[in-house]
Amino acid sequence: MRVLGIDPGFATTGFAVVEKNASRLVPVTVGAIVTPPKLPTSARLSFLRAQLLELIDSHRPEVAAVERLFFNVNVRTAMAVGQASGVALEASATSGLEVHHYTPTEVKQSVVGVGNATKHQVQTMVAALLGLDAPPKPPDAADACALCICHLNRSGLARALEAALR
Amino acid sequence: MRVLGIDPGFATTGFAVVEKNASRLVPVTVGAIVTPPKLPTSARLSFLRAQLLELIDSHRPEVAAVERLFFNVNVRTAMAVGQASGVALEASATSGLEVHHYTPTEVKQSVVGVGNATKHQVQTMVAALLGLDAPPKPPDAADACALCICHLNRSGLARALEAALR
Repeated sequence: MRVLGIDPGFATTGFAVVEKNASRLVPVTVGAIVTPPKLPTSARLSFLRAQLLELIDSHRPEVAAVERLFFNVNVRTAMAVGQASGVALEASATSGLEVHHYTPTEVKQSVVGVGNATKHQVQTMVAALLGLDAPPKPPDAADACALCICHLNRSGLARALEAALR
Repeated sequence: MRVLGIDPGFATTGFAVVEKNASRLVPVTVGAIVTPPKLPTSARLSFLRAQLLELIDSHRPEVAAVERLFFNVNVRTAMAVGQASGVALEASATSGLEVHHYTPTEVKQSVVGVGNATKHQVQTMVAALLGLDAPPKPPDAADACALCICHLNRSGLARALEAALR
């Protein structure tokens, strides 16, 4: 299974495509989309969507794991993150991907084992699980990897449970 | 000039296409896009974008006037409105429209003459200015008309000023 992780942001959106082969997690591509700061809002969102579509078209993930919006921010930040998140969700759904959401706590729980893990712990585990020498940069890209790992862990568990109950 | 007004909302997005012929304002189409409440978030946003693209394709506006997000709401509302707004802005820009933003106060000022006008005053003026027997429904559609009128008023003023200074 090939998962596209998206950590949406108006200025910087982290992305990762991770594949699970047998029990190995293989990073296919990892990075961040930075929208040109001098463009108007609508053009930056248009840029973000075009980049996401290109990513989906190049790497053909079947599933998108998108960070669920968190509510402990101010209203202005919420609006901007909401705009990027809206575009990421729409582009994923329109491209035919199955879309899943995970909260930051769910991701930390799944990747590190505790829901209140630090950023540093998440990044270290991401590097270890994906066989990378160092955590992916920027942090948004590492978060996108963590989203992929979270989804692959959970869907593995769900499949195992389904098989056990059959 | 033909303007597409968009009042973005996650559940209901008001829209209007209004044309200015000489000094007459002509409503071309007015309504609301209601996203199917039973679908997941990503599919609702995908539905919204598809409907907006169809609207743009059918009526060929040159400009989009989109309500600028307002900040006197709670964070959860801000996120949801942000998602719809992000999709509306992106779809407009990707379709090649010139995108303008107006705050609710700017719209009221332009349509009614006072920035603290009531919803009812805005709706009554919209009906009068567009030659309609009653204000468009739902209120989101009337707001989208008001956005069009605001943009047409302002761009008329801007052109007149430019001509006077030439």
